[in-house]
Amino acid sequence: MSGRKGNLMSVRDDIKVVDATIRDGGLCNNFEFSDEFVRELYKTNIRSGVDYMEFGYKASKTMFDPEKHGKWKFCDEGDLRAIVGENISDMKIAVMADVGRCDYKTDFLPKEESVIDLVRVACYIHQIPAAIEMVEHFHSLGYETSCNIMAISQASWEQVEEALEMLAASSVDVIYLVDSYGSLYPENAGELAKKYYAFAEKANKKVGFHAHNNQNLAFANTIEMLSYGISYLDATAMGMGRGAGNCQMELLLGFLRNPKYNLYGILSFIEKYMIPLKESGITWGFDLQYMFTGQLNRHPRAAMAFTDEKRSDYCEFYKSLLDNF
Amino acid sequence: MSGRKGNLMSVRDDIKVVDATIRDGGLCNNFEFSDEFVRELYKTNIRSGVDYMEFGYKASKTMFDPEKHGKWKFCDEGDLRAIVGENISDMKIAVMADVGRCDYKTDFLPKEESVIDLVRVACYIHQIPAAIEMVEHFHSLGYETSCNIMAISQASWEQVEEALEMLAASSVDVIYLVDSYGSLYPENAGELAKKYYAFAEKANKKVGFHAHNNQNLAFANTIEMLSYGISYLDATAMGMGRGAGNCQMELLLGFLRNPKYNLYGILSFIEKYMIPLKESGITWGFDLQYMFTGQLNRHPRAAMAFTDEKRSDYCEFYKSLLDNF
Repeated sequence: MSGRKGNLMSVRDDIKVVDATIRDGGLCNNFEFSDEFVRELYKTNIRSGVDYMEFGYKASKTMFDPEKHGKWKFCDEGDLRAIVGENISDMKIAVMADVGRCDYKTDFLPKEESVIDLVRVACYIHQIPAAIEMVEHFHSLGYETSCNIMAISQASWEQVEEALEMLAASSVDVIYLVDSYGSLYPENAGELAKKYYAFAEKANKKVGFHAHNNQNLAFANTIEMLSYGISYLDATAMGMGRGAGNCQMELLLGFLRNPKYNLYGILSFIEKYMIPLKESGITWGFDLQYMFTGQLNRHPRAAMAFTDEKRSDYCEFYKSLLDNF
Repeated sequence: MSGRKGNLMSVRDDIKVVDATIRDGGLCNNFEFSDEFVRELYKTNIRSGVDYMEFGYKASKTMFDPEKHGKWKFCDEGDLRAIVGENISDMKIAVMADVGRCDYKTDFLPKEESVIDLVRVACYIHQIPAAIEMVEHFHSLGYETSCNIMAISQASWEQVEEALEMLAASSVDVIYLVDSYGSLYPENAGELAKKYYAFAEKANKKVGFHAHNNQNLAFANTIEMLSYGISYLDATAMGMGRGAGNCQMELLLGFLRNPKYNLYGILSFIEKYMIPLKESGITWGFDLQYMFTGQLNRHPRAAMAFTDEKRSDYCEFYKSLLDNF
């Protein structure tokens, strides 16, 4: 039960590739993507065999001013439909709802009135009860749900076990590990994957993984965990995501052996949209400041500030992190 | 015997970190490093606990014109001594000798007259008999030796097994896997590591690994193989090396738990020397063209030409690779 599922040549039909470019990438540009960009990514993902596309957050408009953020921080039904119509494709639509930052009781339509398929509830481990309340609400509205437990590298195994027991008893469909700090190595990522999978399998649920690339391990950890049964795999075009970014979609699609996945579509999108975006000055991806916080198992906020200030005094920055251990 | 050696907190005294910046990085700038650069890297490596520093190749001066290459393509004894003196440090000095490109019978002094400690013989798998002849010569001169089998992702296991049997019967000290194409994944890298280790252990030899970063897996594969008993680990400052480059020294030193290894020294070197080198226009590191050749298990030469020509038509390049499968 705890061994590898399949091998490097296998097709695993349980695999679901989740594109999180607009949602996690939106943290790099305040969600200010053009409609053309989002529509072309939507078409690209369909052509590439991607299973879910996450469009952004459903953030509270009482907490966050819609005038000050791009629309994908809020994912209004009308804005989604302007891109996907009735979404007649096989690809499903996902949005993220953060515990404590979402007016979830008022801002979600019943599933039959929405093009959204999956609501991903993001929380820290101490927020699991609040997350489960949201999961049950979304489930009762008719949505697929996931619970994405962030900063997993700082939770104790006892905490994780308790969270998994609570989630196993809930209506959630997918339990996500989120390596927010990019601190896991393939070895401990694999061990975590085995534990989650064993729990989830008993409760007939799936497990997902969302990586960050602080130690250049986002792709490596993703494929290692996949080999131990994790089946929902987050990736983003060119790895676009907060700080060091995420698992690169182009690496993941080049790795998967299921012929439904097609690398070429995403390459065209990267060449036409992602490289110009990067050249326009939007920053993400592996760099030393993010490596430090990953190695030290810390939130990347200090590294993000270092980046925003366009600093290059890596040694001073590293010493300041050690001073604040 | 085939399980993991130690865990993520262990100190493994058999680990040897090998800095290959001048040798593999020299392939990016025709070995034209300033003496200051090489001397500061030498001092940095000593301070950082690095076990071996590879200074370059001992290439044949009848085949390669010394006027047209930097001196580290030849590693004359006088040039080495101008940097290291008698090398009174604990760090050992390595050079590489390519099968078929090295006048090995005339260009090496007896060990007692040289500051070189380790000669690394690089070959393709069909050149093993020639490599062993060189290994025996260097061994008889008094050097430590390794045999670095390149392009291992294209060799069959039957070939590898035969090579390992021949090397086990030789005087070689260290058998290296070289993932020249950056094509391995942690899963098959780990399997290879177990097989090599089992062979080498019986013959009382060590195993080393030299990674390339075509799929952003150089560091991941290095630490995965290390966990299965591989102990000689190649890395370079900022990953400097041909094409997609190598395992980054700063990632590796941040991972190893032995307190003899010190990250700070290499950070200072990167800030003062590597970042300016990169900004001066010397190119290496992960990029899509190298990802393609890694995914397709091919020599990176077409990707290197794409880079040299400063092309950015990734899709056209990808299609041309598929046409020439």
